[in-house]
Amino acid sequence: MDRTVTSSAGTTSDHPALIALDWGTSSLRGFLLDGSARILAERSNGHGIQNLPQPGAAGFDAALAGLCGDWLDAHPALPVVAGGMVGSAQGWVEAPYVSTPADATTLADKAARVETAAGRRILIAPGVLHDPGGGVSATAIPDVMRGEEIQIAGALAENTGWARNACVAMPGTHSKWVQVADGRIAGFSTFMTGELFAILKTHSLLGRLMPAGVNATPEDEEAAFSIGIRAAQTAGPGDLPHQLFATRTLGLTKRLPPEALAHYLSGLLIGHELRSGLALLAEMPTGTPLLLIGDPALCRRYSRGLAAFGATPTALLGNTAPRGLFQFAAAAGLLPAASATPSSIKSAP
Amino acid sequence: MDRTVTSSAGTTSDHPALIALDWGTSSLRGFLLDGSARILAERSNGHGIQNLPQPGAAGFDAALAGLCGDWLDAHPALPVVAGGMVGSAQGWVEAPYVSTPADATTLADKAARVETAAGRRILIAPGVLHDPGGGVSATAIPDVMRGEEIQIAGALAENTGWARNACVAMPGTHSKWVQVADGRIAGFSTFMTGELFAILKTHSLLGRLMPAGVNATPEDEEAAFSIGIRAAQTAGPGDLPHQLFATRTLGLTKRLPPEALAHYLSGLLIGHELRSGLALLAEMPTGTPLLLIGDPALCRRYSRGLAAFGATPTALLGNTAPRGLFQFAAAAGLLPAASATPSSIKSAP
Repeated sequence: MDRTVTSSAGTTSDHPALIALDWGTSSLRGFLLDGSARILAERSNGHGIQNLPQPGAAGFDAALAGLCGDWLDAHPALPVVAGGMVGSAQGWVEAPYVSTPADATTLADKAARVETAAGRRILIAPGVLHDPGGGVSATAIPDVMRGEEIQIAGALAENTGWARNACVAMPGTHSKWVQVADGRIAGFSTFMTGELFAILKTHSLLGRLMPAGVNATPEDEEAAFSIGIRAAQTAGPGDLPHQLFATRTLGLTKRLPPEALAHYLSGLLIGHELRSGLALLAEMPTGTPLLLIGDPALCRRYSRGLAAFGATPTALLGNTAPRGLFQFAAAAGLLPAASATPSSIKSAP
Repeated sequence: MDRTVTSSAGTTSDHPALIALDWGTSSLRGFLLDGSARILAERSNGHGIQNLPQPGAAGFDAALAGLCGDWLDAHPALPVVAGGMVGSAQGWVEAPYVSTPADATTLADKAARVETAAGRRILIAPGVLHDPGGGVSATAIPDVMRGEEIQIAGALAENTGWARNACVAMPGTHSKWVQVADGRIAGFSTFMTGELFAILKTHSLLGRLMPAGVNATPEDEEAAFSIGIRAAQTAGPGDLPHQLFATRTLGLTKRLPPEALAHYLSGLLIGHELRSGLALLAEMPTGTPLLLIGDPALCRRYSRGLAAFGATPTALLGNTAPRGLFQFAAAAGLLPAASATPSSIKSAP
């Protein structure tokens, strides 16, 4: 994908200020941003850190040159920043986790640096560790994120109200529910919802009754998803491993057609995440806005689930990573002060 | 395995009354029983219904002949019964589920029949369906078992007290928690505990930190298992998909050594099952005995978990399938009336 973004005025901006890389496990996304964090151009390919064109550090170099070598050549003085799994122990260079509370300034203070073979410096954002310490219980277990902290920085920059207090739900393979307080990530919980769905469908007995390549009717999909959500709503503690098995028995008893069973499983797992996540939200100050960040179709699915719980997200946001990488670069002093957007997340109380 | 069982008097009984087959997905077990349900000889091999020596019905014939053709030849008039997945839709002949309440008489009444190529008749036990009907909630979802109903019939025959009311917990790939009331299976819930553990360890991110072939010290194993149980005890509804992720973060933060992480996962999943199962037990009459049936090592692990909940199983039982197959054969009238053990589960109130 190579896309040049045209501004609303119909002209192409010609003042690049930053090359920003969102470098995950399975994909590499590059953004050319101007001094107001607007996207001038964006590109992506499948060269995530687990799928590099060659092994070792040379693989990172090659992937970067392959995606945006022309940007690097055309703008030799432009700062380059990266976030995501590229800073993990399996990444280009490890940027160890910073502890909560964390914001863009914290990330910039603890960022790691790496140089390309050609000598270009890249600033890599750390992940975030939330460790309540002490014992281990439902809420007192350590948790980590890497990549989401950048998306959050981007989301908070979009609305100064959110920066004060917000609950950010980020649906995905490993969903995150994040408490933002006083402009900083105060705590968060990871839910393995997406990965559970995938491995149960692919590797467990539950997938056996699901036909490949057959779509449910919208009515059957809606009914199955709702049954899953309702089961989650009535669940007592410990009931999930039992309710999962209903994916099979609802098929065996022909209460749901085979092609709808995956939607029961989806509703059940999302419902459990929502039940636990909304309990976290309930502990935050009254009126805390609930933001959904992620794939638009998945966010709509979560919104449907939330409606069953009587909850409505304040906003559904798409990819806030480019804006977050801009905030990270600004906090690191890589952007001319005049052009950096004043960011509420940079000022701790 | 071929084992001739010597009676407690030191002599080998010479009055076979029944050939009983416990025929599951991955193994075939044969028992030669006398008229008092004592095991005269037993054998097993890997010819479960998903691993037959040849495809189709001939594969069942060949597996049976291979395991106990000599028994069939030596005792041409002896009845033959079978239970387990051999009666499923993928089995030799389908014995459709019977509905709860169910006991050995119900199973016998609805048994399926198949003939070997040589004309020997085999009576195959059905599975059991529990369908509360109506809506779908934590407790009102349909459930099925196939094989466990035979083990339960065997357990109840061992103690007339249990036959009146009992809670039977059967740890395994798909654990069952069964309510026995008035000598019959009144209802039950399946928990995917064992399968969840296996697929999470093998196919999810959680397994990545677990070293292969390295055992935890007994102290680390105990500590990790206890942390998992404790997390389950403090869990609110919906918390499991979050608590699973701690299998990773307890390793990343070095709170547990890598070789102990699987024991946290085990404790967490077993703990969730116990929490939900004990809630079912709490709804049964006061003083209802709790029986554990299954692999002895796994039953001991469940007992350790139960102790953390302040619960003690009334009994840990091993393989009660041979005795259950005997009860099934007796209920079907295949045994001389004089030799059949009077079974409390045959008399419905």
